[in-house]
Amino acid sequence: MSRVKVAVLGGSGYTAVELIKLLLRHTGAEIAAVTSRQEPGKPVSAEHPSLLARCDLPMEQFDPDALKAKGVGCAFGCLPHGLSAEVIAPLLDRGIRVVDLSADYRLKDLAVYAEWYGSPHHDTKNLTHAVYGLPELYADRIRSAKLVANPGCYPQTGILGLAPLVAEKMIDVTTVVIDSKSGVSGAGRTPKLTTHFPECNESLSAYSVGKHRHTPEIEQALSDVAGTPVSVLFTPHLIPMDRGIFSTIYATPTKPVAENDLTALYRRYYAGKPFVRVRDTLPATKDTAHTNFLDVCVRVVKGRVVVLACEDNLVRGASGVAVQNFNLMFGFDETTALM
Amino acid sequence: MSRVKVAVLGGSGYTAVELIKLLLRHTGAEIAAVTSRQEPGKPVSAEHPSLLARCDLPMEQFDPDALKAKGVGCAFGCLPHGLSAEVIAPLLDRGIRVVDLSADYRLKDLAVYAEWYGSPHHDTKNLTHAVYGLPELYADRIRSAKLVANPGCYPQTGILGLAPLVAEKMIDVTTVVIDSKSGVSGAGRTPKLTTHFPECNESLSAYSVGKHRHTPEIEQALSDVAGTPVSVLFTPHLIPMDRGIFSTIYATPTKPVAENDLTALYRRYYAGKPFVRVRDTLPATKDTAHTNFLDVCVRVVKGRVVVLACEDNLVRGASGVAVQNFNLMFGFDETTALM
Amino acid sequence: MSRVKVAVLGGSGYTAVELIKLLLRHTGAEIAAVTSRQEPGKPVSAEHPSLLARCDLPMEQFDPDALKAKGVGCAFGCLPHGLSAEVIAPLLDRGIRVVDLSADYRLKDLAVYAEWYGSPHHDTKNLTHAVYGLPELYADRIRSAKLVANPGCYPQTGILGLAPLVAEKMIDVTTVVIDSKSGVSGAGRTPKLTTHFPECNESLSAYSVGKHRHTPEIEQALSDVAGTPVSVLFTPHLIPMDRGIFSTIYATPTKPVAENDLTALYRRYYAGKPFVRVRDTLPATKDTAHTNFLDVCVRVVKGRVVVLACEDNLVRGASGVAVQNFNLMFGFDETTALM
Amino acid sequence: MSRVKVAVLGGSGYTAVELIKLLLRHTGAEIAAVTSRQEPGKPVSAEHPSLLARCDLPMEQFDPDALKAKGVGCAFGCLPHGLSAEVIAPLLDRGIRVVDLSADYRLKDLAVYAEWYGSPHHDTKNLTHAVYGLPELYADRIRSAKLVANPGCYPQTGILGLAPLVAEKMIDVTTVVIDSKSGVSGAGRTPKLTTHFPECNESLSAYSVGKHRHTPEIEQALSDVAGTPVSVLFTPHLIPMDRGIFSTIYATPTKPVAENDLTALYRRYYAGKPFVRVRDTLPATKDTAHTNFLDVCVRVVKGRVVVLACEDNLVRGASGVAVQNFNLMFGFDETTALM
Repeated sequence: MSRVKVAVLGGSGYTAVELIKLLLRHTGAEIAAVTSRQEPGKPVSAEHPSLLARCDLPMEQFDPDALKAKGVGCAFGCLPHGLSAEVIAPLLDRGIRVVDLSADYRLKDLAVYAEWYGSPHHDTKNLTHAVYGLPELYADRIRSAKLVANPGCYPQTGILGLAPLVAEKMIDVTTVVIDSKSGVSGAGRTPKLTTHFPECNESLSAYSVGKHRHTPEIEQALSDVAGTPVSVLFTPHLIPMDRGIFSTIYATPTKPVAENDLTALYRRYYAGKPFVRVRDTLPATKDTAHTNFLDVCVRVVKGRVVVLACEDNLVRGASGVAVQNFNLMFGFDETTALM
Repeated sequence: MSRVKVAVLGGSGYTAVELIKLLLRHTGAEIAAVTSRQEPGKPVSAEHPSLLARCDLPMEQFDPDALKAKGVGCAFGCLPHGLSAEVIAPLLDRGIRVVDLSADYRLKDLAVYAEWYGSPHHDTKNLTHAVYGLPELYADRIRSAKLVANPGCYPQTGILGLAPLVAEKMIDVTTVVIDSKSGVSGAGRTPKLTTHFPECNESLSAYSVGKHRHTPEIEQALSDVAGTPVSVLFTPHLIPMDRGIFSTIYATPTKPVAENDLTALYRRYYAGKPFVRVRDTLPATKDTAHTNFLDVCVRVVKGRVVVLACEDNLVRGASGVAVQNFNLMFGFDETTALM
Repeated sequence: MSRVKVAVLGGSGYTAVELIKLLLRHTGAEIAAVTSRQEPGKPVSAEHPSLLARCDLPMEQFDPDALKAKGVGCAFGCLPHGLSAEVIAPLLDRGIRVVDLSADYRLKDLAVYAEWYGSPHHDTKNLTHAVYGLPELYADRIRSAKLVANPGCYPQTGILGLAPLVAEKMIDVTTVVIDSKSGVSGAGRTPKLTTHFPECNESLSAYSVGKHRHTPEIEQALSDVAGTPVSVLFTPHLIPMDRGIFSTIYATPTKPVAENDLTALYRRYYAGKPFVRVRDTLPATKDTAHTNFLDVCVRVVKGRVVVLACEDNLVRGASGVAVQNFNLMFGFDETTALM
Repeated sequence: MSRVKVAVLGGSGYTAVELIKLLLRHTGAEIAAVTSRQEPGKPVSAEHPSLLARCDLPMEQFDPDALKAKGVGCAFGCLPHGLSAEVIAPLLDRGIRVVDLSADYRLKDLAVYAEWYGSPHHDTKNLTHAVYGLPELYADRIRSAKLVANPGCYPQTGILGLAPLVAEKMIDVTTVVIDSKSGVSGAGRTPKLTTHFPECNESLSAYSVGKHRHTPEIEQALSDVAGTPVSVLFTPHLIPMDRGIFSTIYATPTKPVAENDLTALYRRYYAGKPFVRVRDTLPATKDTAHTNFLDVCVRVVKGRVVVLACEDNLVRGASGVAVQNFNLMFGFDETTALM
C-alpha cells in the first residue's frame, strides 16, 4: 500500500516535533511537507536539533496549492489557536483532510466559543461538520470525517475519567471537581517568565482558576455523553516536569457505590479501547510518558468518588491522539506507530 | 539574656537539619545536644555535610539525665512517629519542655488515634495536656505548654486555609475536598523505591488516597474551630520537587459569597499573624520556599469556594513552626530566627 | 521471516524495561521469557507499571534448559556485574547467543579485571571469545559473535568521542581528560541515599574520582584504536536528571589543528554509521533522549581540542546498543526498532 | 550603632532579590531604596512575590541626588553588564560607596576588556581605583575601597579552587582546565528559549565554549596570585537545577604531589577564612545551597591534580559575597547576615 502523504502545519512547536517523530515510525505515512510562517527555508532539524538525520526537510511557507500538488492527503494543524481557521478552509476546499490540534474547531456552540475565546468564530461553515476527535467516544464519526478537531490535553483526562460515570448516571453532575496538574511543555514553546526555568522549577502553582478554556470543552463532551448538561469546576496547576497530566476528579455519587463495581464498570466501558488502561493501583504520569496510553483508576472515599487519570500531554494529549485519529480516518490499525 | 539550651532529638532526618539551621540563627537559643540512636559519636556535620563548620557537634545517645545536667530547657523531638513517646515522658518528668515534631501527641481522641495509627496510644498521661502547636489558633495555650505537638505539614495548609470559613460558618462542612501536592522531602530521608530519583522525578502520582493519617488531624482542628464536626476528603500527591506543599481546597458555601468579601474576611482573620500572607494573586510554593510563611488566596468559581494555600513543608510545615512555638513558649518575639 | 525468540535475564532493572520496550517494537524479535531471581511469577508489568497491556509476561526463574526448550535464540543479560558469568556459560553451552549488558566480559586483560573489580574473573573460557559490542568499531566481529559484551554507558561517549583523533594520531594520548556527567538512572534502580530524590535533586556532585571502573574499559578500546596504550583521566558526575550522559573531553593535539579539519575528520570517520551524528553546533543530551544516537561536536580552544559527546544512557548507553548488536548478530538492518 | 542605609540598583533580577533577603537579616543595614528603570512605582514585592510582607518598598527611578538626600551610604549595583558605569560614577561623585555586581569594573586591562566585551570601557577613571571584591584574597583593599567590583560566579570557584596551587607554584599554569557546571539561575531572569523549562530541564549542554567572558577574569586573578601569566581553558555547562556551580579543575603538577599534602596546603591557605570549607570528602552543590560557603576538595589522580569546588551561584557567587564585601567596607563582622 502506498503511503499517505502528510503535511505538518506550523513546525516550530512541541506538538509538531512530537508528531513528526511519531509519523517517522508510521509505516503508512510519509511526511511530505512541514510549514512555518516564521522561518521558511530553515530545516526542521535546525529548529529542533533532536530531528537531525531523522527529518531534515526545509520548512516551507503555507501554500495549499503546493500541498495539493505534492499529493498531500492529510494535514495536521499545529498552529496556535486562532490561526488554524485561515489555513484549514483552503485545504478542505482542495479535498485535503485535516486533523487540527488547535482548539479552533472543538466547541460547537458559537456563543460558548465567543465567550471563552473573546471573539466570534471565523469559519462556522467548517465548524458545522468538524468531528471532535476523541476516538474512544467518536471513532465512527472520525473515520469519515473531513476535519477532525483533535481534543485538548486536559479535557481527555477529564472526559475519559468521567465518561463511564456520567454515561451510567452514577454521579450528581453538579458536583464535579477536576483538579489537574500539568507538566510545563503544555504551556508551549514560547519563552515566558512563568515558564522560565528558575521561576517554575521547584515550584507549584495554580493558574487560570475558573477561567481555563478547556472547561467548556470538557463540559461539552461530558454533556453529550450524559445526555444532560454537565458542569465542572476545573483547576489547572503547573508542575515542574516536562510532560504529563494528572487529573484528580471528585464527584458525589447519586447512590451508594462500591469501588469494585466502579472498577468493573470502567473495564467494561473501555473494553476494546487499546489506549485506555484501567488500573487497580494508583497511576503515575511516568508510566504513561512518551506513550499514547491514558491510565485511569477509581476509588471511593467517604462515600464520594475519586477518579485518578493521567497521560502524556504531548503524545496522548496531542500528537499521539492525532495519529490515532489519522489511523481511523485512513483505515490503518488504530495503534499503528503508537505502540 | 542568657540563651536557652536546646536539644535536638533524632539528628539524622530532614526536620532535624532544617531545625539546626534555624536554631543557629536564633539569638536566644544554643544547641546543647543532638541525639541519634543510630550513630552516636558521629558529628552531625558528617551526617549532614551542609552543616560543616556550622554545627560539628557529635551526636549522642539519648539520655534524659545527661540533657538535664547540661541545663537543656527545651527539647525538639525529630523522631519518627511511634518513637517519640519513649523519650518525651522522661524529659517532661525532669522539667524539660518539649516541642514534638512527630504525630504522636496530635490526636486527642484515643479511638481515632488507634484507628489511624493501628495501635493504642502509649502515653495517655502526657497526651492529655499536650497542646496542638498551631500558633495562629492556639498561641495562648502554647505559651504555657509543657509539651507542644507540632502540627503536620499538610494539615497546616488545610486548617489555616479553611479556618476563616469554618469559623464564620461560610461553608457546608460536609463538602470539603483538600487536594494536596507535596515535594519529596515530605517523605523523609530513608531511601525507598517511590522516592528514588528516577522513579519520582518527571512523574506525578497520588498516594494513600482516603487513608492518609493527616486526615483526622485536619478534621480535629477544623472541628474545634467550627464547634461542630468537620469531615474532609484529603488526597495527597507526590510532586517532583524538593520542598513545598500546595493545597487546593474546594467547598460549597452555605449562601452566595463574593470573592472580595472572602478575601477581606481572611485579612481580618489573620491580622497580626506575621506568618500568614493573604494574597490577591494566586500563590506559588516557590515564594514560600525556605521561609515560615503560609500563603493563602481565596477564589469563588461557579458559586463554589476555592482556597489555594501553600508553604515550605520543612520550614513552615515542621521546623520553622517548631521554632515559632519555641519562641512563644520562651517569651521571644514570635518571628525570631524566622525572618 | 519468523521472529527470533529472545529472553531478557534480570527483569527488575532499568536496562531491562528499556530493552523490553525496544524489543516490543522490533519486527523480527519476540520476547519469549523474562527472568527474575527475586520475584518469579510476578508479571513484569507489575514490577514496571509502564508495561501494563504491553508486556504482561510473568517473570520466571532462570533455567537454561527451559529457555532452550522455548526456542530462545538470543538472551540479553541485564543482571548486575558479577552475576552474569553464572548464567551466560550455560546458555552458550546450549547454543544460545548472548548480549551481556553487564561489565563482566568487557575487559580482556585478566589482571586489569582483577584490579578494578576486586576478584579474579570466573569465566575466562568465554571471556576469550567475547566481542566488545561497540558497533561503530567492531561490527564485523559482532555479526558472528556468540557472546557480545555490550559496552558501558560512559565509555561509549569517551571512545567514540576520541576514536577519530586517536586513530589519526592527532592527540597526545597522555593528556586526555574525560569529564563526564550522567543522569541518575545510570546508578540503577536500587534505592540508596545518594540517589534519594531530596539528596540528589537540585544538586551536582562528582563521585568515584579516579576510581570508576569504566576507566579501564575506555582505555582498552582507545588503545586498540590507537595501536598504543592510551591513558585517560576520567571523572564522573551525578546530574539531577533522569537520563543522559554528556562528556566533555580535553586533549592536547600533537600538532596545530583547525576546527574545520577536525569536524571533517569526524564526518569521514563516522560516514555510514547511522547512530553517530557529527554536529556543527554544541550538542545537548535532550536531543538524544530516548534515542540510540550519540551526538558529537569538536572544538579547538587555545590550541587544545575539546570534544563534546552525548547520548541517552539507557538507550544508546545500554539497551539500544544491545538491540543494535542483536540486529547485527541476526542479520537485521542495523536500525531496526531503533528509529 | 545606627544602620547603614543602602540602595539596591536594578531590582528586577535574581541577584537583587537574593541581596534584599540577605540585607533584611543584616543587623547593621537598612534598605532605603530599590531602583528600577523598567517599572518605577511598582512595589518590589509585586515584582518578586516572595518578598511580600518582607520588603514592600516601591521601586524608584535612579536619581543619585535623591539617594544622597536619603543618606544612602552604600549602593549595590544589580544592573546588567554595560549599564553599571552610567550609575556608578554619579554615586561615587556624591561620596556613596558602591559594590557593583556587574562585570563592568572587574577587568583591569583595557585591551582585554575591549576584546571580550566588544567595546572600549566607558569609565576608565573609576576603573583605576576599583577593587576586585574577592575577600579571601583582597580583604584589606576591600575595607577601604570606594568601589568594589564584585566577582563573577564561575570565577570564584576557579580562582579559589586554584589559588593555593598557583601561589605555591605547585602546578604548570599552562595546563589548567576548568570544567564548570551551573544551575539555570546563573543565566538571569530574562526568558529565553535556552532557559525555557521544557528546553533545559532534563538536559545538559555546554555553551560559550572557549568564549565565555569569565575566562579573562579568572586569568587576571590567578595571574595576580601567581605573579606570572596564567592561562585557563574554561568550559561552562548548563545544568537542570536552580542554583549551584560546580567546577572540576584539572592541572598537571610541576613535581610529584601527595593528596594529603595538598589538602593540608589548602587548609593552611584558607585558615581564618570563614566561608571557604576545605573538605576531605567530595563536595556537592546542595551542601552550599543558600549559603555563602565555597567548598573545595583536592585529589591526585594518575599524577595529575583534580580540584573540585562548588558554591551557590546567587549567594556566594553574587549577593552573598557582595554582603561580605559590604561587611568589610563598613566594619561589620565579615559573617554578619551570612550564617
